[in-house]
Amino acid sequence: MIIDRLIEAIGAADNPAAAGLDTRLEHIPPSFRGQWDAAGPAGAAAAIAAFNRALVDALADIVPCVKIQAACYEMYGIDGLRAFLDTAAYARQRGLLVIADVKRGDIGSTSAAYSSAWIGRCPLEGGERPVFDADFMTVNPYLGSDGVKPFLEDCRRYGRGIFVLVKTSNPSSSELQDLRLSDGRAVYEAVADRVEEWGEGLRGGYGYSAAGAVVGATHPGEGAALRRRMPHTFFLLPGYGAQGARGADVAGMFDASGSGGLVNASRSLLTAWKARRTDDFAAAARDEAILMREDILGALRGARPIH
Amino acid sequence: MIIDRLIEAIGAADNPAAAGLDTRLEHIPPSFRGQWDAAGPAGAAAAIAAFNRALVDALADIVPCVKIQAACYEMYGIDGLRAFLDTAAYARQRGLLVIADVKRGDIGSTSAAYSSAWIGRCPLEGGERPVFDADFMTVNPYLGSDGVKPFLEDCRRYGRGIFVLVKTSNPSSSELQDLRLSDGRAVYEAVADRVEEWGEGLRGGYGYSAAGAVVGATHPGEGAALRRRMPHTFFLLPGYGAQGARGADVAGMFDASGSGGLVNASRSLLTAWKARRTDDFAAAARDEAILMREDILGALRGARPIH
Repeated sequence: MIIDRLIEAIGAADNPAAAGLDTRLEHIPPSFRGQWDAAGPAGAAAAIAAFNRALVDALADIVPCVKIQAACYEMYGIDGLRAFLDTAAYARQRGLLVIADVKRGDIGSTSAAYSSAWIGRCPLEGGERPVFDADFMTVNPYLGSDGVKPFLEDCRRYGRGIFVLVKTSNPSSSELQDLRLSDGRAVYEAVADRVEEWGEGLRGGYGYSAAGAVVGATHPGEGAALRRRMPHTFFLLPGYGAQGARGADVAGMFDASGSGGLVNASRSLLTAWKARRTDDFAAAARDEAILMREDILGALRGARPIH
Repeated sequence: MIIDRLIEAIGAADNPAAAGLDTRLEHIPPSFRGQWDAAGPAGAAAAIAAFNRALVDALADIVPCVKIQAACYEMYGIDGLRAFLDTAAYARQRGLLVIADVKRGDIGSTSAAYSSAWIGRCPLEGGERPVFDADFMTVNPYLGSDGVKPFLEDCRRYGRGIFVLVKTSNPSSSELQDLRLSDGRAVYEAVADRVEEWGEGLRGGYGYSAAGAVVGATHPGEGAALRRRMPHTFFLLPGYGAQGARGADVAGMFDASGSGGLVNASRSLLTAWKARRTDDFAAAARDEAILMREDILGALRGARPIH
């Protein structure tokens, strides 16, 4: 079960954190970027892929996982998606788990195609083939169960996982997600209850299912309440660092044993070289990832939530 | 304003319908598909692109617009996205408007990257460039305003449009979208009210804005009520044909002058050759598109909604 592999990888690294590769040209020091002709998409994508490989090398013994933001690659078209493939394959080769942050979701037959692309396999006359081949992908729940089930089927069939958006990290997540229902729940709580159900047939040896939830690290109160509400749901917790969350904010989103969550930071790692006034982006990201680990582990030790 | 162009193109074709190119290998007659080696993704994608070109040729004087479902291309990876690009460029070359049905949506900075990919331009050192270059894209509203604003900005900047998911065509759209809020509205009505607001600065000469809504053609009652609720919002109405909706179901989703909506059919056009027991898929799709037009126009004439 992929969720068990994730939990064990977090244990081996002693670090419940993912490095977010939301890489953009402006995240790359000019001295490094200058090796490619970034006038066109091919050069830009090649620079991004090389930057990512160097980051993966610098972080492979610190983090268990990378989260790759598809939008940052899609914006360079075919060349960008090639860089996505290169980054994902290289991270897996270096022993890291890969989350494709794609936030896909559609009617059933269409979600099945998205699932084939990102976690499943594409049926072809020569047999089925993996495509972008991630371990996990993120999923948008707005279309309801029939838009989510194809992903759950591929989780079962190919040993993969999903993280469904429940309460996102951005400021206006409140607009729709926090609306109060007539039964007293917020919209995101209703989604949370569905996600617990969707994961029922996908639980692994540690009690967590392969159908996880995205919960913004930026919402400490809501996140801690969701931890109690969703005892079998593993959390992907984006929003650490540049979006403002710290270890103390996420401590309540972990369970009593310090498991159940994976915190993601992207910009604070990618741009650590800027704050440190160095061009050695890989060493700077490594230093930042180590600080992040200390911060999160310290908060987990200090504020072990009581159930 | 792109929405005015769409309305005028609908008028010129006398057909408020889009052809949905959700093309899959099984939609292509074996006699045609056999020209390519579909054992791998390159051959499969090439067969799909050639099929789409033939369909576009057969439909270019019947429909004003194609809707291309990104998932069906993403599932073939790089080769599939090349087929998307080819199909979109060919449709535009034949004078058709292009809707990229991608249902993207993320936090603000990430939505900006998706927007660059699909309707905006990608900033590069050699200047900004269009990428997938659609006229319209579909957008998922779950993340709220800051996840939608980057798309609205590109609508303004590059003269493009979006359709935001409000009430989708699939059976389990009710699970989340129909939940009742404490203020009496359904969740999808709360989203509908936001979409009207988002479109305020983007209204064209016919009173409709470039921020449209996706409303399932399969929900006649809800769709007609949304037509009254969203007087400045143009509707993309998927679900005609294979998903069960007919002209009579969508008539109430148009305004008193018979404008305000674009009905989409995908499978019923793509597989019309099967029902007609012919391999001439292009002629079969053309016949089906003509029947669809008659059905919709007939329903609009017969059941002009009264406001």
